[in-house]
Amino acid sequence: MRSSPAARNGETPPRTPGNHHHFQSTVSAHRLRRLNSLVLLLRLFSFCFSLASAVFMSTNSRRSSWLDFHPFRFVFAANAIVAAYSLVEMAFSVFEILRGTTPLPEPLQVWFDFAHDQVLAYLVLVAEGAGAAEARGLRGGDTCTAGSSFCVQADVAVALGFVGFFFLGCAALVSGFRVVSFMISGSRFNL
Amino acid sequence: MRSSPAARNGETPPRTPGNHHHFQSTVSAHRLRRLNSLVLLLRLFSFCFSLASAVFMSTNSRRSSWLDFHPFRFVFAANAIVAAYSLVEMAFSVFEILRGTTPLPEPLQVWFDFAHDQVLAYLVLVAEGAGAAEARGLRGGDTCTAGSSFCVQADVAVALGFVGFFFLGCAALVSGFRVVSFMISGSRFNL
Repeated sequence: MRSSPAARNGETPPRTPGNHHHFQSTVSAHRLRRLNSLVLLLRLFSFCFSLASAVFMSTNSRRSSWLDFHPFRFVFAANAIVAAYSLVEMAFSVFEILRGTTPLPEPLQVWFDFAHDQVLAYLVLVAEGAGAAEARGLRGGDTCTAGSSFCVQADVAVALGFVGFFFLGCAALVSGFRVVSFMISGSRFNL
Repeated sequence: MRSSPAARNGETPPRTPGNHHHFQSTVSAHRLRRLNSLVLLLRLFSFCFSLASAVFMSTNSRRSSWLDFHPFRFVFAANAIVAAYSLVEMAFSVFEILRGTTPLPEPLQVWFDFAHDQVLAYLVLVAEGAGAAEARGLRGGDTCTAGSSFCVQADVAVALGFVGFFFLGCAALVSGFRVVSFMISGSRFNL
């Protein structure tokens, strides 16, 4: 509640209304920047873990190859898509922090972020579920006894994907907040 | 935009302020009831499809039993949980439509709904992903050639679970809107 001096000032008619308005918009700009930094951090984590998952999965070729297992292909594809999307969103976030406005028009931007976050979070989660079931099903079979490192690496790739999903889900919460805030008050961040 | 007469009335000082306020709250109460009916419908669909998925999966015992496959157990458990939760939420919705207030205190209620919707939607989606991977992996194996109806029934159960997830996801969008609306304006539905 750092804005309480501003609220108290608001009760008495300000001598210079322009100055008062400037002070308020400085406070909200400061908060906006802090929240944008949080979003940037979430995007960065989401990017790192998704990329790591995709790389771990795609380099998993020993006696058996990851390409022979459809769920593992799905895990790779979903994580690669999320990594690419997170990279684009990081660029958007940096733009927003530097310029104070969104790269796309504001209504389009909030809906773009929210819709993509939701759909990609669900997509990557289905992929991780399928990959986890496949990795678990392989355990005890011929594939894992012949070369156990294949199964371990597949497990690690799926686990990294779940962590990436976690950060994407957090980013989806923030972008959901932005959409509703924009719908109600016409501003991305109504704090 | 049915409330435009009310907005136009607001420009002229109303002769009976109590009556004007009453009219406005009647309009918003009407909208609230319509949105609550939508939520009730989504809960009903989610309940029906999740229950159907759980029943289809749990009756799937022929030469092989669904209990031998861990992902199928997971599908059953997740759908049973969602069906039970949807039933409780339907009772909450009916209460809200009849009485006009939430059964739990309002802040608790909006957060309860939103958190459970999100977590259960993710849970059931992971389960469906795992179940779909397992059902696909069985195809072409001994289990499916011996008795193909087992595999078909498993596919149907997983598909029904996906439909149930779809309605749960829609309900999660509405409850997310309620949470943010409550955070910003102190009212569940700010329309």
